[in-house]
Amino acid sequence: MKNFMDESFLLQTKTAQRLYESVKDLPIIDWHCHLDPKEIADDKTFGNLTELWLGGDHYKWRAMRACGVDEEHITGSAPDYEKFEKWAETIENCIGNPLYHWTHLELKRVFDCELPLSKKTAKQIWEHCAAFLNKGLKVSQITEKFKVEMICTSDNPIDSLEHHKAIKQNSFKTIVKPTFRPSDLLNIEESGWALYIEKLSGIAQIQIKNYENLKEAAYKRIEFFESAGCNMSDHALDPPVYIGADEKKLNEIIAKALVGEMLSFEEIHAFKTELMVDLGKEYCRRNWTMQLHMGAARSVNSSMTALLGANTGYDCMSGADYGDSLLRLLDRLETADSLPRTILFCLNPKDTDMLTTISGCFSAHLSVGDDNLPKGKVQIGSGWWFNDNKDGMEKQMIAMANNSVLSLFAGMLTDSRSFLSYTRHEYFRRILCNLVGNWVENGEYPADFEKLEEIVKNISYYNARGYFC
Amino acid sequence: MKNFMDESFLLQTKTAQRLYESVKDLPIIDWHCHLDPKEIADDKTFGNLTELWLGGDHYKWRAMRACGVDEEHITGSAPDYEKFEKWAETIENCIGNPLYHWTHLELKRVFDCELPLSKKTAKQIWEHCAAFLNKGLKVSQITEKFKVEMICTSDNPIDSLEHHKAIKQNSFKTIVKPTFRPSDLLNIEESGWALYIEKLSGIAQIQIKNYENLKEAAYKRIEFFESAGCNMSDHALDPPVYIGADEKKLNEIIAKALVGEMLSFEEIHAFKTELMVDLGKEYCRRNWTMQLHMGAARSVNSSMTALLGANTGYDCMSGADYGDSLLRLLDRLETADSLPRTILFCLNPKDTDMLTTISGCFSAHLSVGDDNLPKGKVQIGSGWWFNDNKDGMEKQMIAMANNSVLSLFAGMLTDSRSFLSYTRHEYFRRILCNLVGNWVENGEYPADFEKLEEIVKNISYYNARGYFC
Amino acid sequence: MKNFMDESFLLQTKTAQRLYESVKDLPIIDWHCHLDPKEIADDKTFGNLTELWLGGDHYKWRAMRACGVDEEHITGSAPDYEKFEKWAETIENCIGNPLYHWTHLELKRVFDCELPLSKKTAKQIWEHCAAFLNKGLKVSQITEKFKVEMICTSDNPIDSLEHHKAIKQNSFKTIVKPTFRPSDLLNIEESGWALYIEKLSGIAQIQIKNYENLKEAAYKRIEFFESAGCNMSDHALDPPVYIGADEKKLNEIIAKALVGEMLSFEEIHAFKTELMVDLGKEYCRRNWTMQLHMGAARSVNSSMTALLGANTGYDCMSGADYGDSLLRLLDRLETADSLPRTILFCLNPKDTDMLTTISGCFSAHLSVGDDNLPKGKVQIGSGWWFNDNKDGMEKQMIAMANNSVLSLFAGMLTDSRSFLSYTRHEYFRRILCNLVGNWVENGEYPADFEKLEEIVKNISYYNARGYFC
Repeated sequence: MKNFMDESFLLQTKTAQRLYESVKDLPIIDWHCHLDPKEIADDKTFGNLTELWLGGDHYKWRAMRACGVDEEHITGSAPDYEKFEKWAETIENCIGNPLYHWTHLELKRVFDCELPLSKKTAKQIWEHCAAFLNKGLKVSQITEKFKVEMICTSDNPIDSLEHHKAIKQNSFKTIVKPTFRPSDLLNIEESGWALYIEKLSGIAQIQIKNYENLKEAAYKRIEFFESAGCNMSDHALDPPVYIGADEKKLNEIIAKALVGEMLSFEEIHAFKTELMVDLGKEYCRRNWTMQLHMGAARSVNSSMTALLGANTGYDCMSGADYGDSLLRLLDRLETADSLPRTILFCLNPKDTDMLTTISGCFSAHLSVGDDNLPKGKVQIGSGWWFNDNKDGMEKQMIAMANNSVLSLFAGMLTDSRSFLSYTRHEYFRRILCNLVGNWVENGEYPADFEKLEEIVKNISYYNARGYFC
Repeated sequence: MKNFMDESFLLQTKTAQRLYESVKDLPIIDWHCHLDPKEIADDKTFGNLTELWLGGDHYKWRAMRACGVDEEHITGSAPDYEKFEKWAETIENCIGNPLYHWTHLELKRVFDCELPLSKKTAKQIWEHCAAFLNKGLKVSQITEKFKVEMICTSDNPIDSLEHHKAIKQNSFKTIVKPTFRPSDLLNIEESGWALYIEKLSGIAQIQIKNYENLKEAAYKRIEFFESAGCNMSDHALDPPVYIGADEKKLNEIIAKALVGEMLSFEEIHAFKTELMVDLGKEYCRRNWTMQLHMGAARSVNSSMTALLGANTGYDCMSGADYGDSLLRLLDRLETADSLPRTILFCLNPKDTDMLTTISGCFSAHLSVGDDNLPKGKVQIGSGWWFNDNKDGMEKQMIAMANNSVLSLFAGMLTDSRSFLSYTRHEYFRRILCNLVGNWVENGEYPADFEKLEEIVKNISYYNARGYFC
Repeated sequence: MKNFMDESFLLQTKTAQRLYESVKDLPIIDWHCHLDPKEIADDKTFGNLTELWLGGDHYKWRAMRACGVDEEHITGSAPDYEKFEKWAETIENCIGNPLYHWTHLELKRVFDCELPLSKKTAKQIWEHCAAFLNKGLKVSQITEKFKVEMICTSDNPIDSLEHHKAIKQNSFKTIVKPTFRPSDLLNIEESGWALYIEKLSGIAQIQIKNYENLKEAAYKRIEFFESAGCNMSDHALDPPVYIGADEKKLNEIIAKALVGEMLSFEEIHAFKTELMVDLGKEYCRRNWTMQLHMGAARSVNSSMTALLGANTGYDCMSGADYGDSLLRLLDRLETADSLPRTILFCLNPKDTDMLTTISGCFSAHLSVGDDNLPKGKVQIGSGWWFNDNKDGMEKQMIAMANNSVLSLFAGMLTDSRSFLSYTRHEYFRRILCNLVGNWVENGEYPADFEKLEEIVKNISYYNARGYFC
């Protein structure tokens, strides 16, 4: 029996352990997350473990709710230590859940705490960590400890990016880039859309009356984001529905939406489709990467969403098929010779294999004599959200290995709202090295450690550096 | 190499073996099955192994058909021993099939027979078991041997529950409860519906003319079932289709159906949707548990169904997506503060992950200061029917562990028509202990046996007792 | 650690190794492939490794494209050795991909070359293999080396089968049979359909004006194919859409299509449905086997398809559900007592479990006293295309074991365009023996080697011989 989460955690073979040695100290490029740039700019400190751990983590909230904890002790106004105790009781029961491993990796790596968290140890761990936090543990100490070389946040096109500018001014060692996430721009069916467009008009200094204006305003913001270091966009397609339209039709749709008229399903998706195409072309022109996140059903519990707002633990996988629409979107861009580097994420793992095979249909290079053609131009992203666990990550890597080229994988990102989540890169690297190690131990790939180390180092760090930096 | 199905069957590690010791002698709560209450009331005996094994088991029939056995020797009038011989030839070929393990667990545990069944051993095993059966092996001997504490049968709302009453009168040690399964009530598209409603009118002593009457009659039967010990309902949603309707519309639909008029797709599902909502509310009010079974396509071979009737081995998985409709049903009940404890079963394993994440969206508790809030209020059920095998059960538990809290799992049920199927609880417990054991041996959870035993005992027995007894 | 791809490659246990000994020298029945009968008739030789390996293999092309190789070095006019070098660089990165194993099995078994292919070894391996090829390695040498007993090619109904006739005349030891693949006949929506029907009219010597004529012409070609040894058909249903129609309607549809009028979705699928039913009946009458391939989206990159044509690496999995349509098609044939032996292939592995359970609904035998009833009459085919890898093959066999009878499995086929692909049968047999070996080592099936060897030999060879020869 192996010891609980010791040095060889998840590394089942000697080969895996040897490979992990080659990647464990590599820097981290966290190319997609939801960290708050203000907290980075302020180099925030944290009052206690509840603030740090339970403040915004809906993964933990869901586990607590399942365990019968009342909302008062989750998102409500119960005292912080009481909330922490409820969390300690919960985590004890989370056998087989990534939260169990994340929690203990965070305790080990950030707080030098080796004790398993449970109802019994709650008090002791709370006090142990308080000692660290009271010394004023800062964001920058955490990022330096984890050698975080780059962070890509997720930002609204109308954001002033003031915090990103502030970060550049101070001594923060990690490069922090914004990511262009135009959900509010695309979601024409939302009640606040007209108001959003008004704001965008002001910020972009373009009176938005029709599709041409809107596109122009979006392009100006893309340019502004690029001037702040951005080279990546992020889209939630829930799910993609491909419906083409001409500019006249788009102008009519926009005119209706601006005065608050109800749009039909066709109108909503015609607008989204054409704007996605035009955004995609602009990303391609600027050599950006486009992230597409698919397969989620969001805010499905309407009473709890009314109470707590979005991103509070009321999202789930959707089972709807979107393959055909995604294919038409990608083909439209490819036909226009305007498909940017694209990363496809699926929330429902039933779609992982399909997406891997779709990715392989959009990587042709017709130019001759160019030695710097993009590798892994369209690929699937790492196990996302509900798949961000040992089984999900393995499944994603095996799918990519079987039907694509795993060595080109852009690798891990945290997708997190917490600064402690850098341990997930360790978790990922262990799982990667274990998988590769098993193949080698099983005689499925030569024990050529020079090549093997190149592969795991590329996936752990160098691919992302080459693709996104 | 391990010996064939010895004491450590499916227990690959010392930890698994140790954990299994803690659960192997726990009682069984079989909270969903299709046993005939009359056979329990009569404390039935069995003429021979063919009657016991092949009388109603469509799992076995399907395997025999695949092996080229003619229907005469399956459901037809061939002599019992000939049928048994055909089964012996079949099972030999069922390597990797749960039937292989169930068969031999049943031979071992009920008949003390260690011989693998095959064409060669058929005669010997037939005679060996005949000795037991000729001594008059009774239902009660089987349930006592397996320490069956509770059985929940599956019953029609118009059932008199006379056999349940008879069971209470006799000395049968197991608690036997009915489960409210209103398929005939909901299936308004069936040709016999009007006749069924007439029967229900008589039994409930309510003239059913409109939706209000119908609901009232259903509620009366729910009350009657509750008086007979029932606290659980069971629904086959094949699949759920959510279409809302007002009472006026429902009355029109019912009026049409009562005179045998053809209903549209919208009418059928509007009726089913609204009645499901109202039944759900009533279950919640009475603190019942609602089981939802989804993802089946039934009686798909029309000529064989015409010949043999339903539940004869002509059902399969459906690939249709029902996620959105299920979400709307659950959200409707949640918004009305009327969502009962709910167990979600899916037949197509592509949906397991989705259902696990859906379950996590409906477990919030707004009441404050209540120490008895339900745990695992909405959860996925154990690997059902075509998933009731080692791989399917593991997949279901891993999904629940990753995206929910496995420790809260309500655990195993037989879903069987046979009294020998209690061995499936042993099968389940071995698989559970092996899975947990592997995590511990792999350093993924501390070797804290006090906690580990609590977890496997809860899943094997105590959770079900807490939830359903 | 095991050595790279040594004698015990993929055989993790002693039992697996022992079982593999019993199947490794069995002949090969390759009952579905895309080999060119002309190349067999000509007993073709090969100029170099690029011609042999990269001439038509879109699996390899996709991997090269992902790795950033320009099209000039894939399907373009770059020198053969340069293409080979690009391939060598690519394969090195294909860790975990079946191409890695296929490539090295082919090097070992055909060229006695033990060196792993990489950028470094490219030159050496090119020269090593050139020595073999320069000696004039012929098709017949390859098929004899691999003991290929039967090859079933894939042929158009209007084919003259002249090459098949030529093969029969020469001394080629392998039986080569055509397979009836009427895609061009069924694809009434294609622009070339009317022209195709004209050709068919000429060849079948039937003026095709209506459905009756068309059916008659198809039946004549079926008869002609049968006279050339064919007893198998092959269909790509992308996906099946079941829409019934009467003969009058079919005549109208055909009349429209013959003059090039646009057909509606309903018309296209009504024609396909009814023709599939009538073809199925004819296959059944002649005791043929019908292969149904489902779940592909083809030629999805329109600009690359315009450039290179079909089957050039621009196909992927579809996520659409076709369960209900498939069920209606099978039930229609079953009801008419005309369902032939049917093999169901799915490209999207999310459907594997569903198809396995569907297969079990159509195997009943009502005739009495017939000792030669078909076994495994409707079954799922081996891991197809994107599933033709270790994980996909295991998943398919586990699904079949759990929900059907694995022992009846018709086993492996190459589905390949390359004569080197016979190594895939070795790959398959190793995976099969390893899976069965693991079950036995784990105590899940008795160590009865007589029975075990019978099972793996049947799946490796004898079942296919019984079903298709």
